[in-house]
Amino acid sequence: MNFCTQCSAKVTLRIPEGDGRPRFVCDSCGAIHYENPKMVVGTLPVMDDTILLCRRAIEPRRNMWTLPAGWLENGETLSDCAVRETLEEAWAQVADLQPYVLVNLPFINQLYFIYRARLINDDFHSGSESLEVKLFSPAEIPWDELAFSAISETLKWYCKDLEKAAFPFRVVDIGI
Amino acid sequence: MNFCTQCSAKVTLRIPEGDGRPRFVCDSCGAIHYENPKMVVGTLPVMDDTILLCRRAIEPRRNMWTLPAGWLENGETLSDCAVRETLEEAWAQVADLQPYVLVNLPFINQLYFIYRARLINDDFHSGSESLEVKLFSPAEIPWDELAFSAISETLKWYCKDLEKAAFPFRVVDIGI
Ligand SMILES: [Zn+2]
Ligand SMILES: [Zn+2]
Repeated sequence: MNFCTQCSAKVTLRIPEGDGRPRFVCDSCGAIHYENPKMVVGTLPVMDDTILLCRRAIEPRRNMWTLPAGWLENGETLSDCAVRETLEEAWAQVADLQPYVLVNLPFINQLYFIYRARLINDDFHSGSESLEVKLFSPAEIPWDELAFSAISETLKWYCKDLEKAAFPFRVVDIGI
Repeated sequence: MNFCTQCSAKVTLRIPEGDGRPRFVCDSCGAIHYENPKMVVGTLPVMDDTILLCRRAIEPRRNMWTLPAGWLENGETLSDCAVRETLEEAWAQVADLQPYVLVNLPFINQLYFIYRARLINDDFHSGSESLEVKLFSPAEIPWDELAFSAISETLKWYCKDLEKAAFPFRVVDIGI
């Protein structure tokens, strides 16, 4: 960040009075520009004993496999976002959303919120952001070709939970 | 938002190519400025059958009661943030954090994530953002003087859950 969004003057990275952290401060108009973690929301769509994964058509991690997920937008609830992303990336319709894993990625200022969801039918296909959409049994999960650590972590928990047939909600920290 | 953070040119609110939502776009350098919901994280600190609440010393909602909570900062996990805010606002030490309620407030682009937590001792007192910090039994909760709907919602669920002595994690949508 170089310039103030309010008045276009140059900003300085410094700790404002009464604050404990450096912020981009505008000495011209006084505006303080806060930056906060952003949230990625998605689903782990399940049909019988298989899981739907998408092979990414876009960077980062083009060609790697992921769960359908994307940025939470202003004006949207978590479940709205999860359903929308699943539709956009896999043209897949899901129901019975259950909060499943929240992954903290503090080193990149991201959070992933993943719902377990029931895939309503197998009438899915790749959206513009996916090269391929496919169902995998737990044994078939391409662990070495997963796009993001938050996705590996979610799938790892899912495979463990499957054995006990219990899927408690969890907060997981990565990389700290 | 008026000016580009990268080059200081005036921004325009329009839908970028390949996107579905209006963004602040810079036609001079091409930067797209995304805005996403922000997360407030806090605790519901419990000691025996009482709940710790703070009376706000600052706007908005000065003088109203709230749970200790604040903005999730870059570089921070949810539990780090919850513990820090509880310390800053109530000088209270908590342990045994359990994910409890996630409140969606899409009309103001906010999310509240509240942990249930055990108050370690009664050696708490107001921080610079609180006028007063006090323990309330469920019957004493000042429902008409609570600062935010996300806090009322969390406390309402807590009182219901107390009756069954079961505290499942929930995602709650407000105002949609
Ligand atoms: Zn300025
Ligand atoms: Zn620009």
